[in-house]
Amino acid sequence: MKKYLLGIDLGGTNLRLAVVTTEGQMIEEINVKTESDKGPEYVINQMIEHCREILRKWTIEAIGIGSPGPLDVEQGLILSPPNLPDWDQIPLASILEKALQRKVVLDNDANAAALAEATIGAGKGKESVFYMTVSTGIGGGFVFRKQLLQGAHFCAGEIGNLIVDRDGPPHHTLNIGALETLASGTVVKQQGIERLGITGHAGEVFAMAMNGDKDAKVIVDQMLASLAKGIANIVHTVDPHMIVLGGGVMQSKDYIMPLLLEKVNGYLYPQLRNKVQIECASLGTKAGVIGAALLTQQASIQ
Amino acid sequence: MKKYLLGIDLGGTNLRLAVVTTEGQMIEEINVKTESDKGPEYVINQMIEHCREILRKWTIEAIGIGSPGPLDVEQGLILSPPNLPDWDQIPLASILEKALQRKVVLDNDANAAALAEATIGAGKGKESVFYMTVSTGIGGGFVFRKQLLQGAHFCAGEIGNLIVDRDGPPHHTLNIGALETLASGTVVKQQGIERLGITGHAGEVFAMAMNGDKDAKVIVDQMLASLAKGIANIVHTVDPHMIVLGGGVMQSKDYIMPLLLEKVNGYLYPQLRNKVQIECASLGTKAGVIGAALLTQQASIQ
Repeated sequence: MKKYLLGIDLGGTNLRLAVVTTEGQMIEEINVKTESDKGPEYVINQMIEHCREILRKWTIEAIGIGSPGPLDVEQGLILSPPNLPDWDQIPLASILEKALQRKVVLDNDANAAALAEATIGAGKGKESVFYMTVSTGIGGGFVFRKQLLQGAHFCAGEIGNLIVDRDGPPHHTLNIGALETLASGTVVKQQGIERLGITGHAGEVFAMAMNGDKDAKVIVDQMLASLAKGIANIVHTVDPHMIVLGGGVMQSKDYIMPLLLEKVNGYLYPQLRNKVQIECASLGTKAGVIGAALLTQQASIQ
Repeated sequence: MKKYLLGIDLGGTNLRLAVVTTEGQMIEEINVKTESDKGPEYVINQMIEHCREILRKWTIEAIGIGSPGPLDVEQGLILSPPNLPDWDQIPLASILEKALQRKVVLDNDANAAALAEATIGAGKGKESVFYMTVSTGIGGGFVFRKQLLQGAHFCAGEIGNLIVDRDGPPHHTLNIGALETLASGTVVKQQGIERLGITGHAGEVFAMAMNGDKDAKVIVDQMLASLAKGIANIVHTVDPHMIVLGGGVMQSKDYIMPLLLEKVNGYLYPQLRNKVQIECASLGTKAGVIGAALLTQQASIQ
């Protein structure tokens, strides 16, 4: 009997579950609203119900969850993510293990997406892949020979906190001058609201810049300069075979990518210019849930 | 018959050669002046003579060289290091291979020292070690499970070029705000000359700061803040099990280390504070030559 993996992508807005083969192929997907405003108990009960539905139909070997951080990966705890209000020290892995009688693995959503993109997505076949997600926040994951590098304290890939500037807006947990405070979608959106009077999301700012709006161009230019510094710092630290860029901001990739690549080259050692491979993610919104399933196959590499 | 490795540490000032066991124990050492002003041909001939002397006495399996960069590691070429004037595109590995009939491996001096410190020095037994040398320049190397991570273009560990600030003195190859331009021994020495009137090296500035000189304290404080940002960036990228600090500046470690650790903690995620292990190198000036020998045992891990 063929065995499958169950992936869960727990987001602030969407809850995705998927049945995935051990090779990373998605067989079936459930996609519902998280309704996180109803509190953790409600969300977890819904999650368990959907899992049971899947377990009745498929032979599931293990369950992997990708969740917003901060987490305690070793204990399988969700600490207190800004995207999941009222979630505080929730032992999600052990709750699901008890309810469903399967091995359950928990990791952060960026690591899950990194694993999927590196092994079956844009980075497939590459020796080492650094995945970056640029969205509400900025996160990442380093996959080396198909294994996620977790780090000694499970903090490898926490690139939102990379210092790339002396100044920047203050943040309650991130450094002054941290990448996420200068180059996230939230920053672009916020500046769009303040300086351009937009009412929607970061994509509007990119669209205005593409159409020649000078103020929008300044916002985009500053954001991309910071993002490029972050990418250069990753390259000069681990020199990955590919950098894969995902997250909501990459919906504007046609406009962003040429500008970004030019800036990255400006911050690299001369011998690295135009040689570092930087590609857009290829699995879209499915990366998180597929990667969550694949987490269950990882030998822990710290 | 027991086989040994021959390590060569080619520095701008000193040329070291050593016979090393496959476990990294040094058996015999030759330490002479490089006399790099006499040009590459002279230096290489001296090197070959010393190697022949060693080959007559010991069964040497392979030869490893640690050299100042930039290098072409794949081709075994020394490109044009600032510390070795008149060296330009010198195929040192193949010259030695022909002359000595042994396999010859070339890598940069920071990688060689990283390998030694991570496997038999301060980082012995640790799953992953990031070595940093803070000296005339700043370099590094990441050793994972006793293997050097080379990177796709052999540029992993090139942390001198990490951007940690918006501003900084201009440099002909490094980024504005790059770690090496803000936190190297050269920076401290230069500022000591300009602002304190010292005539010697960086150690004088540290000594003056330790004795309460206010201007010296400002110089040290700024340098350590930049160094701490660089360390925090490495932690948030790969979260190594240990960071090992070597290089000439660490001769003032008794004064520097407590100040540095306090600053590093200020730039780390709250859950990482006081948990990241940061230690001083333990092999001293022997790290480079032992590491050079150990390079010959590495399976290439890019």
